[in-house]
Amino acid sequence: MKLNEFCDLMESIAPKSLAMDFDNVGLLIEPDHDSVEKVLVALDLTLPVAEEAIAGGFDLVLTHHPIFWEPVKSFSAHDPETAAAYALIRRGIGHFAAHTNLDAAAGGVNDVLAELLMLTDVRPLPPENLGRVGKLKTPIPFSSFASLCETALHVKGRFVGDPDRVIETVGVIGGSGGGDVPFVCDAGCDAFVTGEMKHSQALTAQHLGLQCCVMGHYETEFPVLKPLITRLQNANHDVQYKLTYAGAAPLRSLEGGNLR
Amino acid sequence: MKLNEFCDLMESIAPKSLAMDFDNVGLLIEPDHDSVEKVLVALDLTLPVAEEAIAGGFDLVLTHHPIFWEPVKSFSAHDPETAAAYALIRRGIGHFAAHTNLDAAAGGVNDVLAELLMLTDVRPLPPENLGRVGKLKTPIPFSSFASLCETALHVKGRFVGDPDRVIETVGVIGGSGGGDVPFVCDAGCDAFVTGEMKHSQALTAQHLGLQCCVMGHYETEFPVLKPLITRLQNANHDVQYKLTYAGAAPLRSLEGGNLR
Amino acid sequence: MKLNEFCDLMESIAPKSLAMDFDNVGLLIEPDHDSVEKVLVALDLTLPVAEEAIAGGFDLVLTHHPIFWEPVKSFSAHDPETAAAYALIRRGIGHFAAHTNLDAAAGGVNDVLAELLMLTDVRPLPPENLGRVGKLKTPIPFSSFASLCETALHVKGRFVGDPDRVIETVGVIGGSGGGDVPFVCDAGCDAFVTGEMKHSQALTAQHLGLQCCVMGHYETEFPVLKPLITRLQNANHDVQYKLTYAGAAPLRSLEGGNLR
Amino acid sequence: MKLNEFCDLMESIAPKSLAMDFDNVGLLIEPDHDSVEKVLVALDLTLPVAEEAIAGGFDLVLTHHPIFWEPVKSFSAHDPETAAAYALIRRGIGHFAAHTNLDAAAGGVNDVLAELLMLTDVRPLPPENLGRVGKLKTPIPFSSFASLCETALHVKGRFVGDPDRVIETVGVIGGSGGGDVPFVCDAGCDAFVTGEMKHSQALTAQHLGLQCCVMGHYETEFPVLKPLITRLQNANHDVQYKLTYAGAAPLRSLEGGNLR
Amino acid sequence: MKLNEFCDLMESIAPKSLAMDFDNVGLLIEPDHDSVEKVLVALDLTLPVAEEAIAGGFDLVLTHHPIFWEPVKSFSAHDPETAAAYALIRRGIGHFAAHTNLDAAAGGVNDVLAELLMLTDVRPLPPENLGRVGKLKTPIPFSSFASLCETALHVKGRFVGDPDRVIETVGVIGGSGGGDVPFVCDAGCDAFVTGEMKHSQALTAQHLGLQCCVMGHYETEFPVLKPLITRLQNANHDVQYKLTYAGAAPLRSLEGGNLR
Amino acid sequence: MKLNEFCDLMESIAPKSLAMDFDNVGLLIEPDHDSVEKVLVALDLTLPVAEEAIAGGFDLVLTHHPIFWEPVKSFSAHDPETAAAYALIRRGIGHFAAHTNLDAAAGGVNDVLAELLMLTDVRPLPPENLGRVGKLKTPIPFSSFASLCETALHVKGRFVGDPDRVIETVGVIGGSGGGDVPFVCDAGCDAFVTGEMKHSQALTAQHLGLQCCVMGHYETEFPVLKPLITRLQNANHDVQYKLTYAGAAPLRSLEGGNLR
Repeated sequence: MKLNEFCDLMESIAPKSLAMDFDNVGLLIEPDHDSVEKVLVALDLTLPVAEEAIAGGFDLVLTHHPIFWEPVKSFSAHDPETAAAYALIRRGIGHFAAHTNLDAAAGGVNDVLAELLMLTDVRPLPPENLGRVGKLKTPIPFSSFASLCETALHVKGRFVGDPDRVIETVGVIGGSGGGDVPFVCDAGCDAFVTGEMKHSQALTAQHLGLQCCVMGHYETEFPVLKPLITRLQNANHDVQYKLTYAGAAPLRSLEGGNLR
Repeated sequence: MKLNEFCDLMESIAPKSLAMDFDNVGLLIEPDHDSVEKVLVALDLTLPVAEEAIAGGFDLVLTHHPIFWEPVKSFSAHDPETAAAYALIRRGIGHFAAHTNLDAAAGGVNDVLAELLMLTDVRPLPPENLGRVGKLKTPIPFSSFASLCETALHVKGRFVGDPDRVIETVGVIGGSGGGDVPFVCDAGCDAFVTGEMKHSQALTAQHLGLQCCVMGHYETEFPVLKPLITRLQNANHDVQYKLTYAGAAPLRSLEGGNLR
Repeated sequence: MKLNEFCDLMESIAPKSLAMDFDNVGLLIEPDHDSVEKVLVALDLTLPVAEEAIAGGFDLVLTHHPIFWEPVKSFSAHDPETAAAYALIRRGIGHFAAHTNLDAAAGGVNDVLAELLMLTDVRPLPPENLGRVGKLKTPIPFSSFASLCETALHVKGRFVGDPDRVIETVGVIGGSGGGDVPFVCDAGCDAFVTGEMKHSQALTAQHLGLQCCVMGHYETEFPVLKPLITRLQNANHDVQYKLTYAGAAPLRSLEGGNLR
Repeated sequence: MKLNEFCDLMESIAPKSLAMDFDNVGLLIEPDHDSVEKVLVALDLTLPVAEEAIAGGFDLVLTHHPIFWEPVKSFSAHDPETAAAYALIRRGIGHFAAHTNLDAAAGGVNDVLAELLMLTDVRPLPPENLGRVGKLKTPIPFSSFASLCETALHVKGRFVGDPDRVIETVGVIGGSGGGDVPFVCDAGCDAFVTGEMKHSQALTAQHLGLQCCVMGHYETEFPVLKPLITRLQNANHDVQYKLTYAGAAPLRSLEGGNLR
Repeated sequence: MKLNEFCDLMESIAPKSLAMDFDNVGLLIEPDHDSVEKVLVALDLTLPVAEEAIAGGFDLVLTHHPIFWEPVKSFSAHDPETAAAYALIRRGIGHFAAHTNLDAAAGGVNDVLAELLMLTDVRPLPPENLGRVGKLKTPIPFSSFASLCETALHVKGRFVGDPDRVIETVGVIGGSGGGDVPFVCDAGCDAFVTGEMKHSQALTAQHLGLQCCVMGHYETEFPVLKPLITRLQNANHDVQYKLTYAGAAPLRSLEGGNLR
Repeated sequence: MKLNEFCDLMESIAPKSLAMDFDNVGLLIEPDHDSVEKVLVALDLTLPVAEEAIAGGFDLVLTHHPIFWEPVKSFSAHDPETAAAYALIRRGIGHFAAHTNLDAAAGGVNDVLAELLMLTDVRPLPPENLGRVGKLKTPIPFSSFASLCETALHVKGRFVGDPDRVIETVGVIGGSGGGDVPFVCDAGCDAFVTGEMKHSQALTAQHLGLQCCVMGHYETEFPVLKPLITRLQNANHDVQYKLTYAGAAPLRSLEGGNLR
């Protein structure tokens, strides 16, 4: 597959026009060759992910988070800001990011999250339409919904609110959604599932009577990657995709002396 | 005790000059009377804390976090920004906050946290000197230290890094310390204990090889309150202090259908 | 009358959409009860006005100037910025402000002022449409018009311009209108009546040949209050209104050893 | 006298280093010749003042307020911002301004004002040291002091406060001093004499219990001009000074059909 | 011709609405009389140009560059910023500037430049439409085009690019156009003629493969003045125009011990 | 030679502390190996220079201008901003820049330029001390000095001022110095040699009576490179330096159908 065809395919899945103004998305590092045969997929472009791409002879690394957040003025293999980019450019491997555009896109981060939580009647969450609002088929107590979240996302969460409150309408924002608590309330939600929420944001949710499930930034965004690979492969069978576990969740739980 | 004597006593414990420029500390709501006999103590001035103060006939609520973060232009019992303040003023109860000055002060948030983790040779953490750096008496693997943190702080944490790495020098910043990861590395720490850390901050820590224990904003700041009460009572026996549990941790774990 | 009905009634008289962007209007302090039976009316919410509201058992204080101009971060009975608000909240009394929206509204500050000066063909004064432009029935020398202003507003004024100049078209802006001198000229006025005008603004008026009557901020805005009460009472007979003199003009003339 | 000698003389009386940062002082329009024989003196450089300078063959106009406040990008005889400057440059006449440096200087605006009000123990008023604080020889009721101000400054004033309050310590700021009310209180004053004060500033004074005499911008600054001329003439007898009345007070009272 | 008629005529040639936001154009110094009989024309209003206007009894100086670029707060014959303006105002002579509006106008700076270079199919250059894009009748090598530019503009240039590259489409921006190199490329040009280009801008052009002719700010703008005079004279025969050489090119070449 | 030794050596020649705040200097691209054996030297890191470095097996490219001026957020071989950096990183070659620190350093850009022009009594040029001021051994007419500049720098210049003016004191600023015309006058110079000067800066020089030689950005900075190489080689004989002509002057003259 030609590089520009891959870029066009990603544009059809997560159009750049959906990205927030401050974001940095698209082909952020150009590979040194024009064809794309092997793509490594991860949430973050960490140095171990870059090293796996090099070891495995990949053409491109596709991630959710962009490799450059702050612009850079110098380049070193020893600086955390540039180490992974240096490694990729050194070997001629490219990098493509689909970030807030993939949050907002149909079938993106938040649609996948809503589906995992078995929400129905799913619609965009105003005002930015990155997140989603949906309904549970049957109203259930918040403690049951919290348990459902832990099962669906394979992680222990942190929760705000009343375990006995019966909930039906649920807002979801993968990643860092704590700042959107007031918008989630305005949208009529009983509960809110997101990845990160600060203490002060949790207090606001508590005051507003919004039940929250804080399940981890990684854990609420990672699920989009497998369906994304499936869509990419269905569109073009010549490219080989690999979902890497080198870029695993940086924040883990302690279980029996190990971090999982 | 006279109100101004109470303020002077707090100033001797957590001098205003130690607070960050952006902070809002001191007597933020004046009570309608000049003597202080009963003080309710909490981490946050939530509405349930205000209601407990009213029900219990307290003169003053002493908290770590200030009641007003953003300045206000209108006042309502139904607005989360002003509801607790409205309730206190309505009943003539005052509010005193010791925030970043209590983080930095000797015997404050971070000294108490360092002591709970049994650190020795404790010194301020540059550049802001809010946090602390100390040493473990014996170097231990990070997995053992992580377990020690969970035991000491009575909460399940989230961890970054290598469970087998042997650690000795530890940085601590109660509350939200994730942004200080580079400073903690610069200070020569093997591990870092804090309350909140964003996903991108955890990736930076991972890249820099810093082991992190993310134990909750509430859980890393709450421990200061009991020793603070002890110091206040020792200074003046006429005042009665109560540590309230109305303002409990907003973010809790799910255990057997309950949030704890 | 229900509180929200009172707010709706005020909205029909002085819609919030007419207020300037920087303004702070509406229900700025919520009362602690839902019904409105007694309303105290004044130009400013000074501490004596708040004390009269408390002594008289009022539910609400309605003023032209909002109680908070700069947002506040702490609350004290001894700080001029918060003393009156503290007194009201302490007793559960509310505060409603109609400021630049009442300037601009039909029948508001400037319409009442134009009527007192017997202007006809009254229309909004561009560009902000807070003020008004009108005509005298018969052209008269400025000295006669100045005398008319002193009689109509019961106050000695300060004047700019030529006493013999015959004037016909008059601009009015209650309160502080000195900065609008160029706009008043552009609107074709021979004379301008306002409350406050700085020395440099008076020099501009002099240069542009605009006759000015500077009659006091208080004196040019106070007249709206009686007709406002009448309109409110006509709309709902269950509420009792009182125009207070506790909040009298702060700047007064010396007459026979007294300030009047 | 040479132009640069005149500038040096003014510098010795009102050093530029005393001016506020935002100010525009010194030789703002250079005359087209190097010697100074006739100087016209006024508070403001209005067009009538410029015309008197032209008609009288003056070399320079010396004023308190600078001719340019906002910088200019075009020059026209018909624009109020530039008309007087255009007239002067057209005839080769210069302009020298001593503004906030003359307020602050020994023997300047505020020292003269303090002397007119017979204050003793006069010292600079913090924090900017433009104004002065002094004492009355004998404490008197505010109504008597207000009357004294009207007599000394030949103008009817506007007053804030309690006519019966006995006052002794008095702050003075010629011109526009209303914004300094809190500083005047902090300096321990019972009363404050200034030129201009806004309604909201008067309310603050009222709340703080500060008696105020608001006597007019022009009337509180004009008195410095005669003693200034005397000092200039004593320093150099070759120059002829004239105090013009063309630039009279723009804001006047109505008396018997005239403005005075 | 009346002054306002002259201004209207210039508006018809170079409408103010075409000027950039930051520009300062139109009648920047008003003459002291209402009729315009003699107009001196130059690229810049330097002091020698002002002196020629005075010596020759001109009513107005018409230039491309405005006399005030930064606004001024003081006025002196010895300050380079104000010396020429001082000289003109002192003698009652006016100044009219047509700057970026004359760049963009039909028949203005860039149309004249395109015509001198014998371009056809001339159209505005996006995005600002100040410059022009046109075609050579026959494609020629860049070295031949460079030679043509030197002949047409009577000056030795500095050039970027490949002398053998055959060019056909040419962009032109009189004056300082180096910052527009990327836009000129986007417009499909093979070559670019402008007055000033910085070293770093030349490197960008080199990288992008754009041939550039850098012919001097003065030399690329001066040619508009003669056709402008012709148009003005055709419109009104009563006014006499003179193109001055007092304001000649400040940057010249060394030839035989002279600067030319 | 070790990489860090090379960096230390450059620091001893052009200390980073001499660089302007806005600058970007030092090891801007780290090579992928630790030893430095072959260094390519140029004024600018253009793509042809990068290609020569790759073809010649160089370890490092040392230039005056930094490769990144604006920080970058994406990386492509086809973007002029990143093409050369991409090529270097791709091959593991490093980049070191000494820019305004080399301008200011003893023996740097401006000392070399002053020496080429045979100036004596050379001292730093205030206020930034990047440039130099020196004296000619014998005062000569400006036309002779201009001719001397063309001979010394091997380029035809552009000149401002009076060819007959006898000059003695000369200021020099390699590269873009036009904005420093007023400082050069203040330093008492008769003439000024620099690389770039805008039209408006040339007019200021003309007004101030300062003779200027504008000799090209490249031509006034390039001379430093040979002496710099000599100093580097003298300090360490193991490293091989090559001065490349791939990065030649982008702006050239037309001579006989060629650009030189």
